[in-house]
Amino acid sequence: MRVLVTGSSGFLGPHIVRHLASGANCDVTGFDLQAPPDHLFPAIEADFCDLGAIRQAVRGMDAVVHLGGVGDVYLATARPELAAQANVVGTTNVAIAAAEAGARVVYASTWEVYGPPSRTPVDEQHPCRPGHIYGATKLAGEQILNAVHQHDNLPVIVLRLGTAYGPGMRPNTVFSRFADAARAGQPLLVQGSGGQWRQFTHTSDIARAVALAVASDVEDATLNVVADESVTILGLAELAAKRYRSTVTFGPERHGDPPSARIASAAAARTLGWRPEVVFEQGLAELFGDLDARHNARPVSGD
Amino acid sequence: MRVLVTGSSGFLGPHIVRHLASGANCDVTGFDLQAPPDHLFPAIEADFCDLGAIRQAVRGMDAVVHLGGVGDVYLATARPELAAQANVVGTTNVAIAAAEAGARVVYASTWEVYGPPSRTPVDEQHPCRPGHIYGATKLAGEQILNAVHQHDNLPVIVLRLGTAYGPGMRPNTVFSRFADAARAGQPLLVQGSGGQWRQFTHTSDIARAVALAVASDVEDATLNVVADESVTILGLAELAAKRYRSTVTFGPERHGDPPSARIASAAAARTLGWRPEVVFEQGLAELFGDLDARHNARPVSGD
Repeated sequence: MRVLVTGSSGFLGPHIVRHLASGANCDVTGFDLQAPPDHLFPAIEADFCDLGAIRQAVRGMDAVVHLGGVGDVYLATARPELAAQANVVGTTNVAIAAAEAGARVVYASTWEVYGPPSRTPVDEQHPCRPGHIYGATKLAGEQILNAVHQHDNLPVIVLRLGTAYGPGMRPNTVFSRFADAARAGQPLLVQGSGGQWRQFTHTSDIARAVALAVASDVEDATLNVVADESVTILGLAELAAKRYRSTVTFGPERHGDPPSARIASAAAARTLGWRPEVVFEQGLAELFGDLDARHNARPVSGD
Repeated sequence: MRVLVTGSSGFLGPHIVRHLASGANCDVTGFDLQAPPDHLFPAIEADFCDLGAIRQAVRGMDAVVHLGGVGDVYLATARPELAAQANVVGTTNVAIAAAEAGARVVYASTWEVYGPPSRTPVDEQHPCRPGHIYGATKLAGEQILNAVHQHDNLPVIVLRLGTAYGPGMRPNTVFSRFADAARAGQPLLVQGSGGQWRQFTHTSDIARAVALAVASDVEDATLNVVADESVTILGLAELAAKRYRSTVTFGPERHGDPPSARIASAAAARTLGWRPEVVFEQGLAELFGDLDARHNARPVSGD
């Protein structure tokens, strides 16, 4: 099976490419503005906001895994027009190209499309009213794909992913901030009470869900792909403080943080047979190991 | 009150500008790629996909009535990337500019955001799953504005308009097609059974709703603005056939036509005091009069 993965040089990209190529036996090509880390897999360096470029790349593919776009909530808030361009116009281009090529689309959306929860657990029928631009543009991408599904029979599986964690994370996440602060001998700053929680979802669990969606013959589904465990930010800080022998301190709440909401992934279990497997404390220990290794690999100042 | 109206040279634009300026005593400036018909009101000729241009235009305004974008369902289907650019990136730019200027936004959305009805009457809590790109991009515009409302307190009133009719309609509507065919001595072609129906909503009723939304102090509302009368396409064809002494004929159904659904506008009555006033047969007679006048004003071939 020939699969194109957009956003292949981002955080999730290499995990998913690797899993599709080795675990699911796909013939995978990346598609990203930048070459993949260490040129580990074949990839097209191009922009999916260029309709001609993505059209050409999707021709002959059986599936497109569409991860690409502005994935950073803070960048999307600072530059909404960029997020709209990449996440909506870009996804529209992917939809056009896939419909023409007869390729199915697996779209990486986010639990953040729901916005403030009106009831819990939040399943896929919960109304969507995202409270920030990132969520609004990701939801728009879903709707574009769903419209092309209805109009032109494009097979589409939307995966609403939990907050992802795992090796290779961006440096502005709470995980990196805690590890960096601890190593610098500073206390770990929790914004707000720390009582807000997330169902952090491991990259390997996400990669498995994507591979199941690529191999599925379901033609129309929207599925939460979110780990079961709820971890408070304070709980995370305490685990980090224990590992690094640091302490926890509190600061003002951050504006616009999405509210905590219990997300249910029962539909992904029914539809794809997907269940999360990584226990958070194990995944976290592995992630901190990765962050430490990357930290230690940095050239020491003065070298 | 200073009001900027985007899309001011489109079908609805001149109706709304005129009503705001004379009926609601606003100081109105248009904003469109093209100058207004006969330069009837002041307008900026620019593109709201250019963030700098719309930022400059919105500065100092109290409200933005955002009508602009790709409003033609068929063009949006043929060129989804254009519709995404204008309707989503463009609306994102309007949201940014309005939030910075402290201006409220009144956004012209459409009943077509609902998609296939799961229950009727369709009120604003009905789920949205638009079956074509036009509806998906208009819904995306709503969500961008709602996200900026939640994040930055931008006051937003979304008006989900019924299929608009009235003087100045585009030539590819069913109204013009019937009038043109009848004048050419051809029978009126109904696609499908003609049993599908619409709640055609008159431009003057829409203009009143927009003026009420501009003057309102409501900061967050999504409201159907749709006439009560349901008119079948066959009924419309028979009224046209009677006027022009023509006959009705039937052809195959058109792919992707949005399904008929009873839309309720009770929330607009409660929130804005809006109720439709134009009786369809009167509005239709006036529209055919306008189409005939425009037809007769065309230079005769050979002149």
